[in-house]
Amino acid sequence: MAQGLERDAGVILKANQQDVAGAAAEHKSTAFIDRLSLNEQRIKKMSDDVRAIAGLSDPVGEMIKIWRRPNGLMIGKMRVPLGVIGIIYESRPNVTSDCAALCLKAGNTVILRGGSESINSNRAIYNVLSQAVEAADFPAGTIGFIATTEREAVMHMLGLTNYIDLIIPRGGESLIRSVVENSKIPVIKHYKGICHTYVDEYADLAMAEEVAFNAKVQRPSTCNAMECLLVHSAVAAQFLPKMVRRFQQAGVEIRGCGQTAALCPGIRPATDEDYSTEYLDLILSVKVVSSLPEAAAHISRFGSKHSEAIITNNFQNGMNFLKSIDAACVYLNASTRFTDGNEFGLGAEIGVSTDKLHARGPMGLEELTTYKYVIMGNGQVRT
Amino acid sequence: MAQGLERDAGVILKANQQDVAGAAAEHKSTAFIDRLSLNEQRIKKMSDDVRAIAGLSDPVGEMIKIWRRPNGLMIGKMRVPLGVIGIIYESRPNVTSDCAALCLKAGNTVILRGGSESINSNRAIYNVLSQAVEAADFPAGTIGFIATTEREAVMHMLGLTNYIDLIIPRGGESLIRSVVENSKIPVIKHYKGICHTYVDEYADLAMAEEVAFNAKVQRPSTCNAMECLLVHSAVAAQFLPKMVRRFQQAGVEIRGCGQTAALCPGIRPATDEDYSTEYLDLILSVKVVSSLPEAAAHISRFGSKHSEAIITNNFQNGMNFLKSIDAACVYLNASTRFTDGNEFGLGAEIGVSTDKLHARGPMGLEELTTYKYVIMGNGQVRT
Repeated sequence: MAQGLERDAGVILKANQQDVAGAAAEHKSTAFIDRLSLNEQRIKKMSDDVRAIAGLSDPVGEMIKIWRRPNGLMIGKMRVPLGVIGIIYESRPNVTSDCAALCLKAGNTVILRGGSESINSNRAIYNVLSQAVEAADFPAGTIGFIATTEREAVMHMLGLTNYIDLIIPRGGESLIRSVVENSKIPVIKHYKGICHTYVDEYADLAMAEEVAFNAKVQRPSTCNAMECLLVHSAVAAQFLPKMVRRFQQAGVEIRGCGQTAALCPGIRPATDEDYSTEYLDLILSVKVVSSLPEAAAHISRFGSKHSEAIITNNFQNGMNFLKSIDAACVYLNASTRFTDGNEFGLGAEIGVSTDKLHARGPMGLEELTTYKYVIMGNGQVRT
Repeated sequence: MAQGLERDAGVILKANQQDVAGAAAEHKSTAFIDRLSLNEQRIKKMSDDVRAIAGLSDPVGEMIKIWRRPNGLMIGKMRVPLGVIGIIYESRPNVTSDCAALCLKAGNTVILRGGSESINSNRAIYNVLSQAVEAADFPAGTIGFIATTEREAVMHMLGLTNYIDLIIPRGGESLIRSVVENSKIPVIKHYKGICHTYVDEYADLAMAEEVAFNAKVQRPSTCNAMECLLVHSAVAAQFLPKMVRRFQQAGVEIRGCGQTAALCPGIRPATDEDYSTEYLDLILSVKVVSSLPEAAAHISRFGSKHSEAIITNNFQNGMNFLKSIDAACVYLNASTRFTDGNEFGLGAEIGVSTDKLHARGPMGLEELTTYKYVIMGNGQVRT
């Protein structure tokens, strides 16, 4: 697959130019066109990623556990592929090769359904992948591709409970909501990331400043970026003015509660709508709280169960936060920006789950598998 | 909870008599009334089961894995409760205490919705459980109970995606299909158990006879009982006449393929409908196959991905079967009747899953939990 992507880079780029021209004609945003656009370097990144996935160890066949019962039965949990995985995604053409490689490496077949804006790019990439798997003696259809851009095809796909085991939607919140509402097949997803960093009264304030700055500014368009900073009232006067100034110097717009505004004059007031918004941009809401339980209550009300952090040197408060906050990833003294399969050491990532069933947080190859019980005996019968 | 069940046995039995009288007035079957009926002994079994669950080790808080990244971050997967679990069940009143105890032990709250035929028994049991958890300083509502028997209440419950994390239906196939079709909340379930035992050409035929007999006859009304016996043609003449005679002597009606009929004259011919039926009774379909792949193809076409067994002394065939058959539980040289949380050593069971997401096969306490990532650092930021 990686070789094919490099060999046919010219064909893929030509198809991609059609898509880009179409998007430009429809006056799509610069950010949209940037996500859609391929070049030699981005194709090289796609083939590198495919090679990296190929190099990961095979998750299938692993005996997760095995034990012996008093009657002599050996009972093992064997890791096996899920089966057929449907991926529904938006405009990024690299998702086509990433997801196909990940699903295949975990022993699954995959059905790809990309956005209509990138249909030419996706078809060109699919042709390459499909030829590669057939050349490697896999059956035709190991990688499936929905060639039509009609919406009805997705609706049909989402009803195929006997043929598709799992749907993973990748894209914006409205795409994901539409998939969840219409799917009869189990879906693993995350809607959005409204991530908080709570600076505790016992925080190392210099560390808190570095971690909070990183969580907001390093790449604000990602789901694991901080959208709201919570600060304990005991350290607010010492911490906030300097922190807010640094954010403002980096171009971050601050929207704060009354106490924040009293300490940092001139900032815009934060509303409940602000606290509920995934900005994905250089905007940050700030709130002063009087206790860890108040911070936890705010996170419980406004958070999206994605990534939440506490900065503290107090052992009890740290453990309490880690234990009680209900989110896929809970951090002590580190930036929420680490919520990512590669950063966690999973080798690759097919997405992040804020669901609780099957997989939570960054999903790698293991999360694309299930298990079966394998029972070995020598004639045991039940009495 | 166990003490309360014993203390209030009289109240529960009185309520149960109302339900039993109602069922009798509606001319329900003897089997139905048996499932519904309680007596002192059955209430003792319920309190014993609750005590056994209480005695299991607490699954919550376990660090399933923990590792260190090159940047010094410690990343752990911590086992945590799922949250709120909804149980929708039919007429057996003991499900009320079993499921409440299991969900609670795994740190969850539970919402119980039993069948209308057992509403008085369930309410009496619920009152006992609810008083017990409040006496132990748990909040009211830790165990929830839907007191109305109106169908609309279930429909409403199945739409509460923001409040209920998982639905587990327990009962017959039609109940489960109705729950799956109407639920917006993830459901874990099994529809039915059409389980096969395949007697390979290299089987120990004496062992095969004992295992197959046990799989069919020991308790035919259960989902893990064998519904179809597959026999390799090379051993059919030696194996089948004696095996069929033994089944017939135990009152089992045999429905066989042409080759079976040739070896065992007088049996009724098996149709595709037979192969697709979960008899739950002393009826067995029998088919002679000419190879392991033919057996596997039959299982793939007619099986329900529940429990499948091979009897063989051939290593390759055994491993091949265990690896290639897609089912929750795959057996080598043992009876499918072992598919059960207690028999597997899980300590208890809330049900069996033939789904692939989250949990497969018998589900114990661990399957009523999820995990979260806990990340501990000393100021790490992403570069």
